[in-house]
Amino acid sequence: MDAAPHTTTPTFHGQLGRAWERSGSMLCVGLDPLPDRLPAGTGSSTADVLAFLLDIVAATADLACAFKPQVAHFAALGAEAELERLCRTIRTDHPDVTLLLDAKRGDIGTTAERYAVEAFDRYHAHAVTVNPYLGTDAARPFLERGGVVALCRTSNPGAAELQSLEVDGVPLYLRVADMVATRWSAHGDCALVVGATAPSELGEVRARVGDLPILVPGIGAQGGDLAASVAAGVTTAGTGLLLSSSRAILYASDGPDFATAARAEAERTRHAIRAATPA
Amino acid sequence: MDAAPHTTTPTFHGQLGRAWERSGSMLCVGLDPLPDRLPAGTGSSTADVLAFLLDIVAATADLACAFKPQVAHFAALGAEAELERLCRTIRTDHPDVTLLLDAKRGDIGTTAERYAVEAFDRYHAHAVTVNPYLGTDAARPFLERGGVVALCRTSNPGAAELQSLEVDGVPLYLRVADMVATRWSAHGDCALVVGATAPSELGEVRARVGDLPILVPGIGAQGGDLAASVAAGVTTAGTGLLLSSSRAILYASDGPDFATAARAEAERTRHAIRAATPA
Repeated sequence: MDAAPHTTTPTFHGQLGRAWERSGSMLCVGLDPLPDRLPAGTGSSTADVLAFLLDIVAATADLACAFKPQVAHFAALGAEAELERLCRTIRTDHPDVTLLLDAKRGDIGTTAERYAVEAFDRYHAHAVTVNPYLGTDAARPFLERGGVVALCRTSNPGAAELQSLEVDGVPLYLRVADMVATRWSAHGDCALVVGATAPSELGEVRARVGDLPILVPGIGAQGGDLAASVAAGVTTAGTGLLLSSSRAILYASDGPDFATAARAEAERTRHAIRAATPA
Repeated sequence: MDAAPHTTTPTFHGQLGRAWERSGSMLCVGLDPLPDRLPAGTGSSTADVLAFLLDIVAATADLACAFKPQVAHFAALGAEAELERLCRTIRTDHPDVTLLLDAKRGDIGTTAERYAVEAFDRYHAHAVTVNPYLGTDAARPFLERGGVVALCRTSNPGAAELQSLEVDGVPLYLRVADMVATRWSAHGDCALVVGATAPSELGEVRARVGDLPILVPGIGAQGGDLAASVAAGVTTAGTGLLLSSSRAILYASDGPDFATAARAEAERTRHAIRAATPA
């Protein structure tokens, strides 16, 4: 029997393990609403944005292990109430799908506690993305409340500028991976972010962090290498990854068939992930 | 004649220079509403929080070069509409005071553009705090729209964990200072964050970045050393710093005299900053 959402809270890793198993998928669907990319005929109000996203969620939920709403896209629209509603619907209608709040928070003491309230009480996320620059004590208020997905090696073109600086011969992103896999993990359930644009770095990270889950953005519109990422990051259990695609799925069609097209793109991506995963 | 707010936008550095000159103050008042710290008799609704903050702003505006609302404290309460109203009031009623949105954003490409919309269009900030971990390309969408205040050496106990790792004999926070002072500054007006809990690091940063403004949190409730921070960070012009105190001012009294007490604490802090500044 399923645990009812909101009443009992499994650990992030427990929840994610169940999501991988039930969905048979390592696809994470990113929910990044851009007003000028909505399908023709969709209005531009925040209610229209919510309706669009609820259609996407309904069309793809059985194909995904996780949904990942990105808060900037809601904040820019003043659509926090709609984000609350979206998260509540995901938790209620799809209790076996992991809900990641992509917020890239990072702040100290009391302020981190307030961000944890936002992520876990307001939006009911299973885990939240966090920036590692402030160190372990800044992550603790999140770790004591839920899962933390720490930036390690991001997918942007300039990611290497700081992240690949060498500290005693080891690039900074591997120092971050070590910090999260040891000190952060002592306080709660963690995962890492490594972009699909950097599959060799993903392989290095996997080699250091055991079975720690890794969120891999950049496989869709950003052009990251899906097959190389799966090969580099999959665990011996054939899981361990959340391969995240946002725009390629959300905006697969700009016509009235957007939900069908989103489902087809999600299906195609799930299949490509499976094909790249060793049996 | 003053430029009308919202119609013309001076650069962040130009605005801040005017704020220092007109206020004769390097005090930055942080606006971090904590529901359980509000004065006795204040209600707990988001409207009550807004009314409290508007009283604080009115009581301290002539003593400060900047106000710094911290978004986590509004996000945890679902008080984004109240934050919009607070920011609008600061810009309209106190056009010579700099408005910093303390959000510590950090994300890539399209997402950074959406966070810039949030900071500059929705909240009308002059500048926004940004985490440096993602590098220069992630900062550009902010720099093209307004000021950026980059985390360099934060005030939390574990700040040194990553920030003091040595890269070719230079601690990471100085590499960040260099990156912001050169590459980021080529795209717009920057500042840095260095906590008052680390005055010797503040002196090292000042020695590398010329007159770049430095936001110094931690002088109030966090117990940072105000006099040592001023001595280490002030420029030859006798400015260059934003010394930020939040809780010590906001919660100077928990009685009905909270606004008078906040003003007295702000006055005391401004005086202590002046006393520590070389003539």
